[in-house]
This record gives sequence, structure tokens and C-alpha cells, in this order.
Amino acid sequence: MANAFGLSRVDGALADGRAIHYYDPAGAPPRTPCPDARPLAPPGEGDRPPQIRVDPWTGEPVLLAGARQDRTFLPADDACPLCPSAPGRLTEIPDPAYALVVFDNRFPSMAPPHGRCEVVVYTSDHAATWADLPAERARALVRVLADRTAALNAEPGVHQVFAFENRGVEIGVTLTHAHGQIYAYPFTPPILAAYVQRSTAHLAEVGRCLGCEQLAAERAAGARVVVEGAAATAYVPYAARWPYEVHVVPHRCAPDLPALLADPAAADAVADVWQEAVRRLDALHGAPMPLTACWVQAPSAQSPGGLGERAGVHTHLRLQPARRAPGKLKYLAASETGAGAFALDVDPDDAARALREAGDGVGLRG
Amino acid sequence: MANAFGLSRVDGALADGRAIHYYDPAGAPPRTPCPDARPLAPPGEGDRPPQIRVDPWTGEPVLLAGARQDRTFLPADDACPLCPSAPGRLTEIPDPAYALVVFDNRFPSMAPPHGRCEVVVYTSDHAATWADLPAERARALVRVLADRTAALNAEPGVHQVFAFENRGVEIGVTLTHAHGQIYAYPFTPPILAAYVQRSTAHLAEVGRCLGCEQLAAERAAGARVVVEGAAATAYVPYAARWPYEVHVVPHRCAPDLPALLADPAAADAVADVWQEAVRRLDALHGAPMPLTACWVQAPSAQSPGGLGERAGVHTHLRLQPARRAPGKLKYLAASETGAGAFALDVDPDDAARALREAGDGVGLRG
Repeated sequence: MANAFGLSRVDGALADGRAIHYYDPAGAPPRTPCPDARPLAPPGEGDRPPQIRVDPWTGEPVLLAGARQDRTFLPADDACPLCPSAPGRLTEIPDPAYALVVFDNRFPSMAPPHGRCEVVVYTSDHAATWADLPAERARALVRVLADRTAALNAEPGVHQVFAFENRGVEIGVTLTHAHGQIYAYPFTPPILAAYVQRSTAHLAEVGRCLGCEQLAAERAAGARVVVEGAAATAYVPYAARWPYEVHVVPHRCAPDLPALLADPAAADAVADVWQEAVRRLDALHGAPMPLTACWVQAPSAQSPGGLGERAGVHTHLRLQPARRAPGKLKYLAASETGAGAFALDVDPDDAARALREAGDGVGLRG
Repeated sequence: MANAFGLSRVDGALADGRAIHYYDPAGAPPRTPCPDARPLAPPGEGDRPPQIRVDPWTGEPVLLAGARQDRTFLPADDACPLCPSAPGRLTEIPDPAYALVVFDNRFPSMAPPHGRCEVVVYTSDHAATWADLPAERARALVRVLADRTAALNAEPGVHQVFAFENRGVEIGVTLTHAHGQIYAYPFTPPILAAYVQRSTAHLAEVGRCLGCEQLAAERAAGARVVVEGAAATAYVPYAARWPYEVHVVPHRCAPDLPALLADPAAADAVADVWQEAVRRLDALHGAPMPLTACWVQAPSAQSPGGLGERAGVHTHLRLQPARRAPGKLKYLAASETGAGAFALDVDPDDAARALREAGDGVGLRG
């Protein structure tokens, strides 16, 4: 049992050797993980293991994971692999009760030693949504992500930890139980690399953190601010790529979540504002908003840029909604995926105004 | 009436001033465009014009086009704006009969002087699909794209012409009538810029064209070749990002379609192989494959890289399918859109084998 940023963590193993980590509130009764009674073959036997290939046209790595074609696809509610195990119904989580759990993905896009893929389950309640969880659980999730980031950054060969959530069957989510994921890449992926490079250059040239500068400008202007929290702000960025895109930015400048947790109140504020922003996105069209939630964190100290690059990064969360109007999704088409030019249908000022007005009266909880 | 790479082109104007270009086979009777009798307001009045914003986190331009939210969305077949006009039913194309037509998009992501957006209609037959058009029409389309590329590259401020097709309601296509589009960007979008940069660097460092080298390697290996034409080859690239991704590559090295048309047989071969590749993609799951088709061409001579960059580019077509298995789409999620790391579910060798076997007996027409 380890202390994980104020939570209690117990590590276990699944039947096929994959790791599982249970996170409980400090002071919860000690947990002894149940054994996994399923007859699972060790991963990789009979499968072609994931590969990383480099695209000669861009120099960018591409993940090849053929075994993922057979992954679990929208199972019935009573066959959800993220629910607690019960007699006669064994899931990915052997314990009959849990709070937050992280385990190695059974159908990973990357496998050791060439990266890691983890699943982060937010709650044992199959029907709960992120926006409705108690504030304490949302705050605990940020701590879990910080703990896994620190652990994975120390794994051999990990250059970049990417914590994210894919949300909504509209964007291809195959399990509806509230969960996120963590990818530990053996390289820094190109979009994150661009942020790091620009941030580092900005710090060197202008002498200021790019994230701090953007945050200060948005707070001063106010037009695109959606939620103003005690120590974090949510705003629609000036050059948004997604309709109703929202960035959740801690006021404290830290390169990643473990560093942000040096000030637990700052991490709590991020969790609170994250939840409130998603509540407003859900209220906007009267239906849960399909989105990706992407944490921008600095590369690991063992990445080629190393500690030098970490200094310039201001960790924050990006919410990338996929619905542009009721019943109408935002699709990425040729301009976005073939040329790289995003076309945005919703003016960021209008988006922020709509989100401020959406679900009014809910207010910032926590 | 102008000669457009062997076709006959007649230019006209729509009621709101937008340009329209009719392309007919050489030797067709001379065409006098019908006037557009619709009471259309000039574009832009009352609308906020499209803007280009630069994302401070990447330095990349983003297109902001709020007026597009009201664009025509899956109209009934008898209200299709791409069908020929008829008495009492006026469409975007005033003539009662046409072969290939190009006109300025009524709901553009970019507007002069900051770029251009055009619609390319392949046929007056509302129900026809690209794969089933006569070979002559497919070959004519490649000439039309070449003619528009040459014309747009000469427009003030155009740095990059991007010809593409979005195909399938599954990926958000709002009009089902067979058509493509052309964007003329006042910048070179980042994905195309990466290809240009890598190709130029490869030529400088290795002394060979990157496209020629990839093509030769794929033809020599054979495992990923899908269609071998007289002067063009279709193959699944080694580091594909999309399930069943196919590149259609002319054997002749040319920076763009106007240059390729110096050898009309090379352009014809591309058209033939493009059609055959799409036929095989359609046969694969027994249903038309949703995809984006993206032409890689060199930037214009007036772009910052100018003529120096054009030398390294080998123009080709990329087919990016969006279905990974029957009934299962490939979605871009957080790893792709938040970090930039693509995860591929289908091994490129398996994909090529499946496409070679799909629709066997159809053979290469034309």
C-alpha cells in the first residue's frame, strides 16, 4: 500500500500478468486485491505484437496494432468489462468494490518495451457520468493521473505520458462505462511535440511561459472565459479547432500533473473546473457531449528534449467536443486529415457565450 | 471557350457573382451558359466573412467560417443543389445538362482574398458513383483538377491548391451527389508542408525523389501493391494511418497535375487506377467505402518555398478509408487528434491482400 498524492494505492496483477492499481481515499480500510480467476492466456501469444512504424513522408511514428480489431465492442450493460466482478461474472476488475482503478489495456496500441496503454476507471457505477461524480472523486482522478504519470515517466523508454478520455459512442467509444486512458509513448507525438517546441521557443525568445501568457490574455479579455475557478480557468481558445473547444488551465504554472500536485489546491481547482466545463457542454445541446479530453503534459526527463523542454510547458486539459449543433457532429474531413487545415464552424466568442449561458444556475460545485 | 488539357472550358457566373466553369469533351457542341435566374444575395452580406487565425500553440493557421453552420445538410434527392437546373427547380448549376462543372462554394471555409473554395461536380447523374463512371469521365476529371490547379496557383496569394473528395455520409458528407472540392489556401497546410519539407530534404540529402523511391520499393516488394496500371500503381503504404489506405502514384515524377499532364497517358493511368482502387474498396465490405481522397501537389510558385520546393514533390493521390470492418468505422480519437499518434488496426500487408482479392474479376478498365 503506497501513498499516491494523498490517496492509498494497492498494486495487483490480472490473470495474464497485466498490472492493476486500486486507488482508495486515504483512511479507507486496507485493501487486499482479489485474485483474478479468469483463464486468460498471456497477452501476445498467437497475436502479432504491436509495432511502431515511421512514416517516410513525415518522419512521424505510427502505431500498428492488428490485434485491436477484435477488441470488445459495445457489450451489453451486464457484460461490461469495467464493472466490478461478482460471483459468476468476472470482469477486468477482480474486486467486488472499488473507487478508482487503473489497469493495463487488454487490447493495447502499444506494448512493452515499446510503450504502454492503461485504462482508468472513474467509478464502479456503470451508469455514472464524469460530470455527475462527487467533486471528491473528480479531485481523486486528477491525483490518480498524476501518480500514473510519475510512475510511467520512470519506466524505461517512456518519452511522453498522455492521459486522455474518449467520450461518446458518436466518436467510436466501445465501452460506455465512465473511463479514461493513459498512453505512455516511446516518443513525443507530433502534436504534443509542437506544443513543447513552441512553448520552449517562446520562453527562450520572449522570456515568458506561453501558457501563462495565453491564460492571462484570456482572463483579461474575458469574452471567451467559460468558468473562472479559484485557481483554474476554462476558456474557449482564440484559434479553436473544435466547436465549443475548451481549455482548462491551472493558474499555477507546472510542467505536468505530478508537479502541479505540489499545490494540491491547484489540482483540486482543475478538477472542479473540468467537471463544470463538461456539465456546461452537456447542457449545451441537452445531451452528453461527445468529446476527447486531452492532457497536455511535458515529456519525460528521459525524452530527447529532457529537462530543458519541461521548463517551458504549462500543463493543461483540452476538451475537444465533436458535436457542432444538435444532431450534427463535427467530422474531420480531407482539409483536416489530408492537408492539416482545420475549419471551425463556431466562432469562439459565440461558443464561450453559449457555454456561459448553458446550464446556468448549476454553478461551480466542489 | 478555352482549351483545358484537351477539354473545352466555358466560364460563367452565378447570380451572386460566383464563378462557374463548364468542362465538355473536345469537339462537343459549343456551350453558352444559361443565366442564373435565382434571386441570390451577394455572398458575405449579413454574414461574418471567413477568417484565418493562427494557433499560438502550433503556429498553424485555422480556418474560421461561422456562416457554414447554415450550409445545406442532406437535402432530399429532388432538392439536390448539384443536379442540373430544370424549369421550376433552379440549382447551383443553371444549365439543364452538363458533363463536369466547377463553381465557387456557396458556403466556403475561405473567401477571397484569403483563399478559395470550389466544388467539382463529376456528373449530372444524381445517383452515379465515382467508381462506376465511364473511364473517359474519370480521365476528364483529372484534367479538370489540373486546369483548376493551374488557374488557382496563378491567383494572387494562393500558396497551395488542394484537390480532394469527401465521400460518404458516415464521414459527414452533406451532399450525396458525386462531387469533389478544391481548396486554394493562402498558406501551405501543415500536413502537406511536412510532405514537401521531407521530400525536399530527401532530394537534397539522398539525391533521389522520395516518391519515386517509395514507389520503386513497393513495386519491387509487391506485397502491398493493390493495382498495377500501365503508368500508375496503387499500393497500401508501409506506415499507413487509415485502414485500407491506398496511395495512387503515377510512375512519371511530376510536382503537380498540370505538370503530369505533359504526358496525358500518365494522367489517364492515374485516373484508371484511382477508379479501380475505389472499386476494390467498395467491394471490400460490400458497400461504398466512406473515405477522403486527397491529392498531394506541390505548393504554388508564389509560395514562400517557391520553385525550390516544387522540385522535390511527386504528385499522388491518397485514399483514406474510414471503415475498418463491416459496420465498424475508424474514428480519430484522442491519440490521433490530441497527441498526433495514429493507431492502425489493419496490417498494411493484410489490407493489400484483401483489396487484391476484393471484387476480383472486375479487372482494370479503361
